[in-house]
Order: sequence, then structure tokens, then C-alpha cells
Amino acid sequence: MDRLQVHVPGKTYEVILSDGLRHQLDDYIEKAYSSVLIIADQQVADLYLNDITNSLKDREQVFQKVIPAGESSKSFEWYKKLLDYCVECRLDRKSLIIALGGGMIGDLAGFVAASYLRGVSFIQLPTSILAHDSSVGGKVAINHEEGKNLIGAFYHPDKVLYDTETIRTLPLKEKRSGYGEVVKHALLSDEGWFSEVVTRRLDSLSSEEVRADLIRGIELKASIVERDEKESDVRKHLNLGHTLAHAIEAELHYHSLTHGEAVVIGTLFALHVSGLNDSYQKLLEWAKDNDYPLDVMADMDVHALVDRMKMDKKAEKGQINYVLMEGVGLPYVTRLDEKRLVQSLKHFKSEVRE
Amino acid sequence: MDRLQVHVPGKTYEVILSDGLRHQLDDYIEKAYSSVLIIADQQVADLYLNDITNSLKDREQVFQKVIPAGESSKSFEWYKKLLDYCVECRLDRKSLIIALGGGMIGDLAGFVAASYLRGVSFIQLPTSILAHDSSVGGKVAINHEEGKNLIGAFYHPDKVLYDTETIRTLPLKEKRSGYGEVVKHALLSDEGWFSEVVTRRLDSLSSEEVRADLIRGIELKASIVERDEKESDVRKHLNLGHTLAHAIEAELHYHSLTHGEAVVIGTLFALHVSGLNDSYQKLLEWAKDNDYPLDVMADMDVHALVDRMKMDKKAEKGQINYVLMEGVGLPYVTRLDEKRLVQSLKHFKSEVRE
Repeated sequence: MDRLQVHVPGKTYEVILSDGLRHQLDDYIEKAYSSVLIIADQQVADLYLNDITNSLKDREQVFQKVIPAGESSKSFEWYKKLLDYCVECRLDRKSLIIALGGGMIGDLAGFVAASYLRGVSFIQLPTSILAHDSSVGGKVAINHEEGKNLIGAFYHPDKVLYDTETIRTLPLKEKRSGYGEVVKHALLSDEGWFSEVVTRRLDSLSSEEVRADLIRGIELKASIVERDEKESDVRKHLNLGHTLAHAIEAELHYHSLTHGEAVVIGTLFALHVSGLNDSYQKLLEWAKDNDYPLDVMADMDVHALVDRMKMDKKAEKGQINYVLMEGVGLPYVTRLDEKRLVQSLKHFKSEVRE
Repeated sequence: MDRLQVHVPGKTYEVILSDGLRHQLDDYIEKAYSSVLIIADQQVADLYLNDITNSLKDREQVFQKVIPAGESSKSFEWYKKLLDYCVECRLDRKSLIIALGGGMIGDLAGFVAASYLRGVSFIQLPTSILAHDSSVGGKVAINHEEGKNLIGAFYHPDKVLYDTETIRTLPLKEKRSGYGEVVKHALLSDEGWFSEVVTRRLDSLSSEEVRADLIRGIELKASIVERDEKESDVRKHLNLGHTLAHAIEAELHYHSLTHGEAVVIGTLFALHVSGLNDSYQKLLEWAKDNDYPLDVMADMDVHALVDRMKMDKKAEKGQINYVLMEGVGLPYVTRLDEKRLVQSLKHFKSEVRE
């Protein structure tokens, strides 16, 4: 078992990683909660909801709500339905909401927890690699038709309980998605870890590799969030690859490629614009070897992408803030003007096509 | 001009009270905001929106959204519409949302500001007496069909700018509503102020009286919020009169009586249950003299009220937490069981009818 601590203003919470943790869940959750609502997506519920409810069977007042899997459930509609369900279950201020699933569920259930009765307790049970990123740091949100995560809050969980066993059974596409954030974290961290990550073969990952990468990722994320919870400074670096990624995802209506896959494309583009050729080539090769869907760039309308980027939460007065790299471990934020962005995107499109 | 400061964890903000402040608004609002969205209700907009936009005429990117007056606009539907409008105006993280109006607008626009892009800046321009209470303390929310303020956040404004001139033109019903919170604050504070407040004739209030009461009310509220922002302790005392008030309002579907009017009834009930006969009689007389609609109690179904109270945000495990008084200035929180509550309500109904 591994235990990490995350410190944010006014709160410290633990991230616990352990194989099979879901079966001993009851030991990790205080008895004082008046009731528990588990929110899960259908896919994860089919696999693990029974284990969870079994583990909590000695408690009174355990409710559950299963919603359709996929980013399209991170909507205003589901936000409202879940709040209605909280009211229906008469959850009170001492209630706990458990988010069982990947980043989508964590974001959605987290925003419900943040806003129901102006905030109730909230525990994350991530079941994906990607969620190692989203479950730490307190960003919760839903999507708006016009863009990802446009509505939300900063709201930290009481705990993150990571059953690392649940990762083994992930489909390859999900591993690719998770490693999108892992490789981003490695690039933000240091050359050593980055060089290691680009040796990973995602179709034959060992438990030890995943666990080591998760822990390093969470440590990096926690150390950044501790210094800058509200993203006024260094936390911005975590957006490496995300400005383009969000635009691509929106253009594809959150279908056909996963968030982490989009992040790899966005990160490649950031390295390209940064002129870090070595790292760019390493990442490109690794992405190709592991079947990242780089070909989606071919059909992208560059101007449509730029319009989306101007709508990004991090944009200010229509100017696009971009995270670039001086070198591995050396990110910085800069404003890119529209013209340069259009040119670079055109160039990048032709590069990745080859 | 009067200036008061409110200190909460991580933030200090000012409350500025001044006659005619709306004409000099531009002087009080920093230039750094990338854009401004003014949210007002129709009634207030008709009176003051022109003054506000005139005062801000030298700024680029000033947007406005006028919504129907009344508590029924504090809905999920309007919350979504306002967020849509934020997106449509391309508000960014450096944008400012101004809430121009009473408590309804402050709560609604405040929750929009709290959740759009996970939080943008927010300034309150209260135009009612009641809003002296709601504009200080950071509670923002919308209503759910099943109860008031069930969805929201703790989110503090950057400033509260109080144009005390706007209060003079308030209709008597609004003054009654405002003085519901004033008299509650006085009761929580001390006998001297309480005895003063119950001499106020609401149909002939002087500017000096209102201003003095507002400042004392804001001071009391600020001092409580500073000690207990998240309502785990002394802030609960501010719910004096509110448990019953919310139930009455919900039973009447937020029509026919105002929040402050309901609070006076709720506060009377709390004094009744507390056995503080002297204060009860003083408040009752004052309420009658000033035409508070005490007669709504006559048609209330006691059991329906109790069911509503069990749904109150402050209820825990179905137990109703109630603020009672040992004496003026000496509130405490206790749990009332359902039976006692039903009996007391029946008794109270017959008492106020006389």
C-alpha cells in the first residue's frame, strides 16, 4: 500500500493506493457520515459496484446512481438529475458522495458534491490511469455545449482511494488515454522519467510500471497544486498540451478519441512549437508505436481549432495562453498570436501525417 | 460614506455605503477587468440600470442581462441561461460579474460567478435593505423545487457597493422584508439595539435610522462570518427564525409574502419556543404595528411545515436543528423533536391569530 498526502489551503487529504482496496473500502471511510451516495458510470458499475456496496453493507442509507459512460454524461442535464437524486435521497450536510470511476465521474460527482447544500463530503475512487490526474487537485466541472469544463468549482475530496487492481483490466484505449497525462507529467518533471515513460509498451505494461508512474504523477500534481491551488501561477503548466487537446475534443464532439489521446497530440504540438526537436521525436515515435490516433489531425480545420482555443477557459481577452517548454522540466506560459498559431498548426498537420 | 471590512480565510473585502454611489461606480471598480456583465432584475433595472451603464460608459465590453423579478427566477433554468450568456459574451477569467439588485439577484448572480470557469470576480450592488444581510458572508445559491438554496457555494464578492439612496424608494413591503433580517440581527446582538429597532415605524423610516441599522447589521454579520465562514459553529445562529421561514415560503411557493416577512414569523416562533415572553411580546406588537402578514399562519398545515423543515439544509438525519434564545444576544442551537415542534406550532398558530 502507498499513501501520499496532498496539502491545500485549509485542508490535507490522503491518496491511498492499494491492490484490491475496493473490498476493504469500509475500513477507509469514517463511520460518521449520515448517508452515502455512490455515483458510477455503467461500465464501471458493471465491474465494481457490487464489490463496493458489499464492502459498505453494514451501513444504513447507502444509495447509488449509475449513469451512462462517456464524456457526454458530464452535462448540465446529468448534473441536474444527480442533484434531484440527492434531494430525493434526502442527503444532508453530513452525507458523503463517492465518485466511482474515471475522470468524467470524478468531475461530475465532484461538482454535485461541491454545490449540493453548498458542499458535502466527497471521496474519489478512481478506476482509470487518467484519473490519477483528475482526482488530485480539486478541479471539478461539467461541460458546456461550447466547451469543456466551463462550469465548475475548486473542491477537494476528503480522500482519494485508488484500487490499483482496477487498472489491470483497462482496455488498451484507456491505457493510452491515461498515459497521455502520465507522459505530460513526465515532461513537466525531468528527462529521466520522460525517457523511462517513452519506453513503456502500453499493451504489456507491468503492475510495477503503472504503480511507479501513478505515484510520480500524483506527487508532481500534488506539489504543483500545493503551491498554486487556484491556477494563478505554476498550475498553469499542467495545461501543457491541453489547449489544443480541448479544441480537438470539442471539434470531434468528444467522440472517437479519448482525452489523454488528445493530450498527446496537444503535447506533441507544444514541443513542436517550442522547437524541442529531440523530445518531439521521442514522443512522436512512442505515440506511433503505441497507436495514438495522430491521424485525426489530418481532417482538422485549423481555423476552427483556433476559434475553439480562443474560447478556452485560459484565454484572456481573446488571446491564447500557451504552455511551451524551454526543455524537459522547464515549462513556461506565453501568448501565441493567432497568425503564428495558424501557421504552426498547418505545419504540424503535415508533419504528423508523414 | 461608510467603509467596513469583512475578513474571511484568504480574502478581505470592503463594504462601502454611500448615497448616490451608483453614479460614481466606475471609481470603485478596478480597470483591470477584461469585461463586465451586469445582472439585474427587471424592477431594479427599470430604476437604476441606466445610471450604472452610464457610470461605466468609458469601459469596453460591458454586457447586461435583465431577468424577471421575484424569487422564482432563482431557479436552475435561469442559472443555466445566465451561464449560456456568459459563454455567449465570451467572458473570461478576468471578467467581472455585477449583481445589481436584492438578495435574489445576489444569490443567483453569485452562484453564476462562483461556477463559471470555476469562479470569476463578483461585485454586489445591493438595492434593498434585505440585501445588507445576503450580500455579506459569501453564501450564494439557487432554489430547488424541493427547497430554498439547496444548490450553491461559499463564494465571496470582491466588493459590496451599497448605494443607500436606492433604499429610500423601496415600497413598504420591501422595507418590511428588510427589517425582518435587521430585527433578527438586533436580537442576536443586544437588548439596546433590539429595543431601538422595535421603535422603528417602517412607513416613516429616516435615512439615519436605516443607515445606522444597516451598518450594525453588516458589522454583526461580518463578525460572525469571520469567526465561522462555513457555518460549523456560531454562523448557525444567523438561522434564527429561518427554519420555519423557509418552510412557510416553500408552502406558499415563494409567493404572497417576502423572505423577511417570513423571517419575522419564524423569529416570533423561536422566541415563543424559547419562552422569552417579554421579547416575544415586543416583537409581536412591532410586527402587528407594521403590518407583517402574521395571518398566513392561520392557513398553514402544521405537519406539512414540519415535513419541510426536515428537508432544511441544516437538518441532519431527519432531525431538525433549531436556533433558540436564552435571552437577547444569547442564541443557541438545539434539536427539536417532531412532536414538540408540532405542538409548539399549533400553540403558536392560535397565539398569533389573536
